[in-house]
Amino acid sequence: MGRWAPDAAIRLERAALELFAEQGYADTTVPQIAARAGLTTRTYFRHFADKRDVLFLREREFPAVVSAVLADAPDGLTPVDLVMHGFDAVARDGFDAWREAVRARRRIIRSDAHLRERELLKSSALAGAIEGVLLEHGLESRDAALLSSFGVLVFDAALDDWLEGPNDRPLHEVLRETRDRLGRLTG
Amino acid sequence: MGRWAPDAAIRLERAALELFAEQGYADTTVPQIAARAGLTTRTYFRHFADKRDVLFLREREFPAVVSAVLADAPDGLTPVDLVMHGFDAVARDGFDAWREAVRARRRIIRSDAHLRERELLKSSALAGAIEGVLLEHGLESRDAALLSSFGVLVFDAALDDWLEGPNDRPLHEVLRETRDRLGRLTG
Repeated sequence: MGRWAPDAAIRLERAALELFAEQGYADTTVPQIAARAGLTTRTYFRHFADKRDVLFLREREFPAVVSAVLADAPDGLTPVDLVMHGFDAVARDGFDAWREAVRARRRIIRSDAHLRERELLKSSALAGAIEGVLLEHGLESRDAALLSSFGVLVFDAALDDWLEGPNDRPLHEVLRETRDRLGRLTG
Repeated sequence: MGRWAPDAAIRLERAALELFAEQGYADTTVPQIAARAGLTTRTYFRHFADKRDVLFLREREFPAVVSAVLADAPDGLTPVDLVMHGFDAVARDGFDAWREAVRARRRIIRSDAHLRERELLKSSALAGAIEGVLLEHGLESRDAALLSSFGVLVFDAALDDWLEGPNDRPLHEVLRETRDRLGRLTG
């Protein structure tokens, strides 16, 4: 998880998800989260604006992580392979050890309309980050917009499938299957 | 526009867009919108919950309109052609005469974070409606979810392109070009 957030933020996220699961999102307070993580409330607010914000740590970091991975991508990939390479690298690096945490987070977000709206905004931030990389690679703007949306669509669908599926399928495999599935459906 | 909302709702929408363009969204009131449309405030509230709601008339109706079009689709289309047939029919029926209104609406929505969030939620309602039709056609649930998201992606990208492009390209043509473009990018 080397590309991700500082350790304190990760510990706070884990503590928050545990508490939300144990006693519910509404009944959990920021001081409780900080205490469970062995940190102060003040440290909490150095990393997050409010209680809700801890749920969006990965989303906040995700655009920058994907951009960094794409900057290190091998030369000579087609644009779509470049995008899928970025998601593949992130999936291999950051997700499989965290499936239960990602599942817990998703359950909480789906329980609240405001959290769902915020989640949708974050997908559009991710698409924007990928679009920026594609523009730097010389893609025409409409192509960059279309392909970045396509990549996020495949990633979001793969994430759903991975969260709902059996426990032994790594995300990067589900990602490849999802892209193949969409290719068959639309080809 | 036979499949769309009652005439009074359409008149209120048009009056609202005119006033928002003339004097700004914040400075426009519901009584002003009703008066411009030659209707009462009470009639306004029979069609819309609040001032913001008038901006989402098309989005509110869009899932039902697309479902109705898909129910009338010719037999024997592949699933992706069925989805694109629905958007093609809606594009031919309801958009080209309204381009300036759709543009005005989009400018207002982009100016406000709450309106943008609501817009994103409506895209997901549209994808849900298409997914329902695909499930009725016997598609497996992951395929239905993936293909409906794909359809909405192509439609949203085509709508952007149509709104930003020259005035003489009908939306249904832009839609076909967008699908072809995405096919080339991902093929």
